[in-house]
Amino acid sequence: MKKLDNRISIGFQALDELASVLRQPAVSQVFVLVDSNTVQHCYPLVKAYLPEHTLVEIPAGEEHKTLASCDSVWCRLTEKAADRFAVVVNLGGGVVTDLGGFCAATYKRGIRFVQVPTTLLAQVDASVGGKTGIDFLGFKNQIGVFQEPAGVFIDPRFLTTLDGRQLKSGYAEVVKHWLIADAEAFAFQRHAGVVVEDWTDIIRASVATKQHIVEADPLESGLRKVLNFGHTVGHALESYLLQQPGREILHGEAVAAGMVCEAWLSAQRGMLSAQELEQIEVFLFSVFEKVQFVTLETAVIAQLALQDKKNSGTTINCTLLDGIGKAVYDQPVPVAEITEALRYYHRL
Amino acid sequence: MKKLDNRISIGFQALDELASVLRQPAVSQVFVLVDSNTVQHCYPLVKAYLPEHTLVEIPAGEEHKTLASCDSVWCRLTEKAADRFAVVVNLGGGVVTDLGGFCAATYKRGIRFVQVPTTLLAQVDASVGGKTGIDFLGFKNQIGVFQEPAGVFIDPRFLTTLDGRQLKSGYAEVVKHWLIADAEAFAFQRHAGVVVEDWTDIIRASVATKQHIVEADPLESGLRKVLNFGHTVGHALESYLLQQPGREILHGEAVAAGMVCEAWLSAQRGMLSAQELEQIEVFLFSVFEKVQFVTLETAVIAQLALQDKKNSGTTINCTLLDGIGKAVYDQPVPVAEITEALRYYHRL
Repeated sequence: MKKLDNRISIGFQALDELASVLRQPAVSQVFVLVDSNTVQHCYPLVKAYLPEHTLVEIPAGEEHKTLASCDSVWCRLTEKAADRFAVVVNLGGGVVTDLGGFCAATYKRGIRFVQVPTTLLAQVDASVGGKTGIDFLGFKNQIGVFQEPAGVFIDPRFLTTLDGRQLKSGYAEVVKHWLIADAEAFAFQRHAGVVVEDWTDIIRASVATKQHIVEADPLESGLRKVLNFGHTVGHALESYLLQQPGREILHGEAVAAGMVCEAWLSAQRGMLSAQELEQIEVFLFSVFEKVQFVTLETAVIAQLALQDKKNSGTTINCTLLDGIGKAVYDQPVPVAEITEALRYYHRL
Repeated sequence: MKKLDNRISIGFQALDELASVLRQPAVSQVFVLVDSNTVQHCYPLVKAYLPEHTLVEIPAGEEHKTLASCDSVWCRLTEKAADRFAVVVNLGGGVVTDLGGFCAATYKRGIRFVQVPTTLLAQVDASVGGKTGIDFLGFKNQIGVFQEPAGVFIDPRFLTTLDGRQLKSGYAEVVKHWLIADAEAFAFQRHAGVVVEDWTDIIRASVATKQHIVEADPLESGLRKVLNFGHTVGHALESYLLQQPGREILHGEAVAAGMVCEAWLSAQRGMLSAQELEQIEVFLFSVFEKVQFVTLETAVIAQLALQDKKNSGTTINCTLLDGIGKAVYDQPVPVAEITEALRYYHRL
């Protein structure tokens, strides 16, 4: 199986580059995976750049990031007799890029896929790092593989298709990248706020931070875990609320809450000053609404954090901040302290 | 994720070595995957060698090499909160080793698994080479990944649990290894026949042949395709008959028929002499019964070969023999000629 260029293209030229990659002779068939949102709002912007292709649609939403959706994608690939030189173009947010990547990585033991992320979250996070996967029994990304895409094409114009809540959800990962690796950007941006004219530079810096970390540790044996900052508590919160109809929150909203909790845990250990903790809280609450839950639920949510991929046995290994702009991974935190952190957040 | 020893152990000491590997401190939990046959006939032989573990059972048979079986395995791993340091022990034939390998390779983006193959087929073929997968929509191994097991433990004593038909099925892959890479062994064995006292040496030589080829080309971009000898026609035949209740044949039986067809294709191209073709036919028919189909079915079976993973567009790339003991891959064969080959076989 020949490689396409293993490139990341960010900016208004990205779709032109996608077009030229898909027209290579080593590509036998092109499949474009969309969801019920991106087929309406994004596919029309991309269509002109695509060679002849088969459109494959899955329903939109995290609740469809399932084996059943994979089944339907694999069916279409099989029906169309996709061979090992076929390419899957994943056009959508994190659900489409993660699920489409997993389907391609496992179809006939792996065909190539390219990511065309259409949400800020997918642009700065999901499409970089080779993580693919689906949810299972309520656990996020429980089934998946590590597989790098053959290319990532990020056009900031897609962001105009998002509502404010979706845009902010992605912004949480941008903030995370500042908090774990770029104190200067955080200092600058916490005054500038979330209103941005051209996202290109912010995306580029955020992708560069993530790429730098992922390249040093592709299989998450060490350093890469710093990217989990905010995610131990965030994932647990997200999983918990996902199972409660009407209470679902977006990934970034969960991560923002998780970052407050984990910053508090860092402060408890004297790794973060009270002033830094306050800066983080003030900034995050200026962008994100507070996630609603009651004190009684905190212990159950903390228990869910135990099932997180990064834990061994009964210890919860968290990534904490050692000052703004520096993260340390594998910090053991007892479940009871996760509960405490959630209670702290609840009282804010 | 720490590696276990990436070893292959063949002989009566294999289970002792399995035991010592599973007792390493880097192993948090052990899961043993069996099917409804191996739980009866093989698990009792292995049990004493295992540390505390969770037994996971799937129904026996190729018709259960499905996503539904994976679902049940992933459920058990999730229920038991298997973390990234858990190990899955696949105890069974090719269905268990392929499916269990796939489940482990995709659970939390990959946990370790070891293969304890209990059929001759799995011992000389399925457990070496890192291919994992399941069937989908009637296509064999349509969904899967390449992932090396953390260890392979082959005890020839398991072969006493097999009936003659199962044993012969595995023998087809042994013969294939001779035909593509070991003319001397073929010359010797075609006089000796299939009655064997101690399989250890035959298994060891066969595994060595396969390993040698796989190591030179782990992702099947070239050389490894020689291992597909007999499989283009064989897989098509197997898939076709699998969908017809009462006509199912074993993998090795299909491959034996496929080898006759593909040897004939080689002879048609002057790559194999008439005498060599006859030697192959006489030997294979002395071991395997003829696979039954009617002339009218040959075109449909040939069409199925097109959907094989190794093909691009409408060309069927076959591995053919350039004399006994030497194989050449990517030999284009028109579908009509596959039909001819099946008709030749039918007339024999």
